[in-house]
Amino acid sequence: MTRFSFTVSATDGRARAGELVTSHGPVPTPIFMPVGTYGSVKAVGPDDLHALGAKIILGNTFHLHERPGDERIEQQGGLHEFIRWPGSILTDSGGFQVFSLAKLAKITDEGVAFASPIDGSPRFFSPEVVMGIQRRLGSDICMVFDQCPPGQADRAAVLKAMERTTAWARRCRAVEMKPHQAVFGIVQGQIHEDLRLSHLEEIAALDFDGVALGGLSVGEPIDDMVRILRAVTHRMPAHKPRYLMGVGTPLDLIHGIENGIDMFDCVMPTRNARNGQLFTSDGVLVLRNARHRDSPEPIDPDCPCATCRAGFSRAYLRHLLVAGELLYFRLASVHNLHFYLDLVTRARAAILEGRFDAFAADFRTRYRPRPGARTGAPEPEATS
Amino acid sequence: MTRFSFTVSATDGRARAGELVTSHGPVPTPIFMPVGTYGSVKAVGPDDLHALGAKIILGNTFHLHERPGDERIEQQGGLHEFIRWPGSILTDSGGFQVFSLAKLAKITDEGVAFASPIDGSPRFFSPEVVMGIQRRLGSDICMVFDQCPPGQADRAAVLKAMERTTAWARRCRAVEMKPHQAVFGIVQGQIHEDLRLSHLEEIAALDFDGVALGGLSVGEPIDDMVRILRAVTHRMPAHKPRYLMGVGTPLDLIHGIENGIDMFDCVMPTRNARNGQLFTSDGVLVLRNARHRDSPEPIDPDCPCATCRAGFSRAYLRHLLVAGELLYFRLASVHNLHFYLDLVTRARAAILEGRFDAFAADFRTRYRPRPGARTGAPEPEATS
Repeated sequence: MTRFSFTVSATDGRARAGELVTSHGPVPTPIFMPVGTYGSVKAVGPDDLHALGAKIILGNTFHLHERPGDERIEQQGGLHEFIRWPGSILTDSGGFQVFSLAKLAKITDEGVAFASPIDGSPRFFSPEVVMGIQRRLGSDICMVFDQCPPGQADRAAVLKAMERTTAWARRCRAVEMKPHQAVFGIVQGQIHEDLRLSHLEEIAALDFDGVALGGLSVGEPIDDMVRILRAVTHRMPAHKPRYLMGVGTPLDLIHGIENGIDMFDCVMPTRNARNGQLFTSDGVLVLRNARHRDSPEPIDPDCPCATCRAGFSRAYLRHLLVAGELLYFRLASVHNLHFYLDLVTRARAAILEGRFDAFAADFRTRYRPRPGARTGAPEPEATS
Repeated sequence: MTRFSFTVSATDGRARAGELVTSHGPVPTPIFMPVGTYGSVKAVGPDDLHALGAKIILGNTFHLHERPGDERIEQQGGLHEFIRWPGSILTDSGGFQVFSLAKLAKITDEGVAFASPIDGSPRFFSPEVVMGIQRRLGSDICMVFDQCPPGQADRAAVLKAMERTTAWARRCRAVEMKPHQAVFGIVQGQIHEDLRLSHLEEIAALDFDGVALGGLSVGEPIDDMVRILRAVTHRMPAHKPRYLMGVGTPLDLIHGIENGIDMFDCVMPTRNARNGQLFTSDGVLVLRNARHRDSPEPIDPDCPCATCRAGFSRAYLRHLLVAGELLYFRLASVHNLHFYLDLVTRARAAILEGRFDAFAADFRTRYRPRPGARTGAPEPEATS
């Protein structure tokens, strides 16, 4: 059984096409990972994910620990078996959630004490606790426990969080995981290039299976994120997968791939679907707009997703949305997930053929983001 | 194109196996029709319905007139095209909903004035209006506009409703429908055997394509419903389909088939699924019960539905239900609909093989209804 491998097949500028392999199969990169917070990518089933060509999904350590509990999931044969997903799974470490969702979080060098958002009972997350949870979940890729400072944190606070994240990364490294599990480190440093680079050096030195950029798309201006991607990504270990956590909009994905990112996750395709915002090559379609009320057109005439292919019209989908019909959520989520998965698939093909710049330019010319909607930053509840 | 035909292939006691054919294909009987109130069987798609072997679904005239509007649906090519359902569709007449859902309903011989439940604006339903709505929807089987008195109505009120229903049935009969549309009459008379029989005579004389029993499973004791079924069903025209409206529990279906009913509809499989009540051959499984929390078993080990076959455990389904995950609703609804569709399929096979009594006895021996839950009576909101 392959525990974990990663190969870069081709580069085009800084963009990379590659393949990572977990014990649950190969994953072409760049890849987008649909988010399955509580062990379900909201409104879609494993059959839908399979039809979409998804290879890897994300589960949230923090949420699954609360509900239904990692010990219960381990008893049921692990997360893959529990949710009937035969592909790969990455679990985050709960670091982001602890600091953004938990009440009364109290942080020390040992770890973080907080109150359960479900019933208020006391919780304590440390590097050892968090890796233990991920070991029980049995995910293929586990993330180290990091401290993610708020977007507006000052330089001193960012430095302190980096120090702690490095110390915690060392402790995570020392925890014995299941034989099939890979572990990724996380780089903090927020929007400070020098801090990002020095923290990258510390994390890279710990020789994890992959390296992630945390603390981006947390409310900073998009220019700051792009600046950091340009300064930092190409300095990340070349032979290891590079993961940009929690990002983002379709344009953010293009920025990331352009700078050498291999992996993305975001709640945006599923959450926006539920809110009636559907992605098309021309930009975001706002389904509640009255002009769609009588439209016999599919969401996107060029789209081969199951929803568009089945001929569901904008008029019908809008009706389902307005009437609160449950079917809407599945049909819209399938479409939006297809848009994201198709975007990385087409980007990969362009890289392999040495035409990524033209692909990115074409995409940017045609795709009009919604005015004011720039980022895939998770809202405070941070579920998919 | 076949407009409408019905053939009884075999009888076993009073039970009948047959086939009705609409312009959208053949429908074996006895049949159960999943309810798609707003043009969607809640939480499942046409692909799921196809996989379940559903041949005919029900749409609600009252609801579709309110949202998205029958004129809009006609502009979109009719209800089949709008909802992308290639099978048959029956629409009710809105009679039940007008009297149970609408506010300030004022009834005269001409029709019923009421306020829209969506925005309070004035509405008027008459036989002509209701048939016009169904003509625009383009359903294969249309129901006449009837007056359905409340379960506790006295004999005089029931008589008055019967008279009006007969007069309205004549007016419905006079409305020209689309060439492919069949029309069914509705028999009222509540729990009074003599009134049921006299009203049946009036409705049968109008020579509709089929005859329905309305006003049952509206709160009366189950014994009263069974008594009426025994006294009335075998007197309904033998060469036309017999439809028991809005019924019911699995045991109600057995009662109905035993007495010669061919068609059923009920919100119970989908609504109960959403409430965590799952049907099994042994009775109703209440998924929220703590004893299912760690169960690796499927809902029903003998069940070949997509949900059970995919290996989703009670523990996982319960987790999805408790966490409010949208995927739950589809998985549970598919299971419950399979139970109902499988029940009528097995009943049909038993009738064709002349062993319906043994089949019914076996089912009743094994199936334990939930204490206190006897009927499929729609709750006031009467959506699926």
